[in-house]
Amino acid sequence: MNVAIIGTGLIGGSMALALKELGIAKKIIGVDASEDHRKKAVDLGLVDETRELADAIIASELVIVAIPVHAAEKLLPAVMDQVTTQVVMDVSSTKETIIKSIAAHPKRKRFVATHPMWGTEYSGPEAAVRDAFKGKVTVISGKEDCDPDAVSLVEDIYGKLGMKLIYMDPESHDLHAAYVSHISHITSFALANTVLEKEKEEDTIFAMASAGFESTVRLAKSNPDMWVQIFLQNRENILDVLNEHITQLRKFKSCLEKENETYLTELIVNANKIRKILK
Amino acid sequence: MNVAIIGTGLIGGSMALALKELGIAKKIIGVDASEDHRKKAVDLGLVDETRELADAIIASELVIVAIPVHAAEKLLPAVMDQVTTQVVMDVSSTKETIIKSIAAHPKRKRFVATHPMWGTEYSGPEAAVRDAFKGKVTVISGKEDCDPDAVSLVEDIYGKLGMKLIYMDPESHDLHAAYVSHISHITSFALANTVLEKEKEEDTIFAMASAGFESTVRLAKSNPDMWVQIFLQNRENILDVLNEHITQLRKFKSCLEKENETYLTELIVNANKIRKILK
Repeated sequence: MNVAIIGTGLIGGSMALALKELGIAKKIIGVDASEDHRKKAVDLGLVDETRELADAIIASELVIVAIPVHAAEKLLPAVMDQVTTQVVMDVSSTKETIIKSIAAHPKRKRFVATHPMWGTEYSGPEAAVRDAFKGKVTVISGKEDCDPDAVSLVEDIYGKLGMKLIYMDPESHDLHAAYVSHISHITSFALANTVLEKEKEEDTIFAMASAGFESTVRLAKSNPDMWVQIFLQNRENILDVLNEHITQLRKFKSCLEKENETYLTELIVNANKIRKILK
Repeated sequence: MNVAIIGTGLIGGSMALALKELGIAKKIIGVDASEDHRKKAVDLGLVDETRELADAIIASELVIVAIPVHAAEKLLPAVMDQVTTQVVMDVSSTKETIIKSIAAHPKRKRFVATHPMWGTEYSGPEAAVRDAFKGKVTVISGKEDCDPDAVSLVEDIYGKLGMKLIYMDPESHDLHAAYVSHISHITSFALANTVLEKEKEEDTIFAMASAGFESTVRLAKSNPDMWVQIFLQNRENILDVLNEHITQLRKFKSCLEKENETYLTELIVNANKIRKILK
């Protein structure tokens, strides 16, 4: 099977590596608006060749749209216009708007919306990672609106990548993603800004910062272009979580102001319940 | 050299392992208020034997106080009362109040205040880790108030553990610790509470939560008894950071409410500067 990958960055590049190594793709054709990325994707061996969009789609049986979600939803109708029997899937971080972008398209049923729950704070072709997806979860969204053979192909591929599949309507996906992914990025960005604002002695941060700090602030290195669009796309859900998060932080603030040891303990004991959920 | 370790938990236990393996300690004598911890510390091979406090001090040349900081500052005067020529060091997360607790003690100069910048979200003897400290940083605070031989011994030990030493007055230590350690714990606890409050479908969190979420929320598993006291001890510095952090989160909130893409991008680009500081 030939596979066209539109967007040869972190996710597209990592997927290209996996599809080739597992023998799922015979040929990977990269499509990328950036000449630099096209060159790197070939040089790094992520793709076999690069082509213009229309050529790549014609030459492929599967098209993977792996560009940031705001660009993906703009491009997707044009991709679907070129589709005859191909299957098209996306890997974006929000699902509601991208599905809406082709909801009325005559080729709608050839499109399968997916979200593999993996990423790092890095981006671009150099960020691509081998064995990235194994053991992780992929959400498939709006399966009932797709051709069964299209869903089967996508399920089969994610299965071969070693991923666990869960199914969710796009609204539920976006709500849960706000809680388990998007808010973490906001808190990391805000924490980085907090420390950068208050802590002028950079050497001191560098010297004293231990694993705990690095772990909470790691996501603050993430790509602005990608995350600005995710935040705007999913703004209502994220605002809802963010308001709750600010409320929770104020409870800690109030405990500290009043030196209320009992309530502070309760807050932390409650937070410890996350243990039940995360191993 | 015989070493008494008061508190055979995460830090004390890990230090016991290192001191024994590196041949720094001939015998490790554990002191712990908890019978269960005393038994585990012996069973796990963290300490050679356990004794009552006074006996342990008499039999040792170095005493390491590795109990939570509020307990440490209550116990420390009694420890110093027993000291003849021993060196006493602590490993607590705040430095101002513990140093004050023995500032006027006749044996003050035998005490060296330290903070090895390492920890995990686990606690107790079972949480002790081999090679925990290698490559990490230790802060030594108030060195000028100690006997030179006491400081030399402590510096020598941390050097053998493979740690980098930095020196800081207690006030500066506590301020910087609020920024690079304590606030990360508050944001993690609050994030856990946020998600637990809003997200009732625990299976969904479990399934969808990826490495990013786990990384920002990992510290929320940390021990309440320890962290309540650290937060209360360092409350003024932490309140200062926490207020700044809430301000920073509100900037994100305002951007989302107004769909202000330009300012949202600026906030994230600024947060990316943390890259310069953390590798």
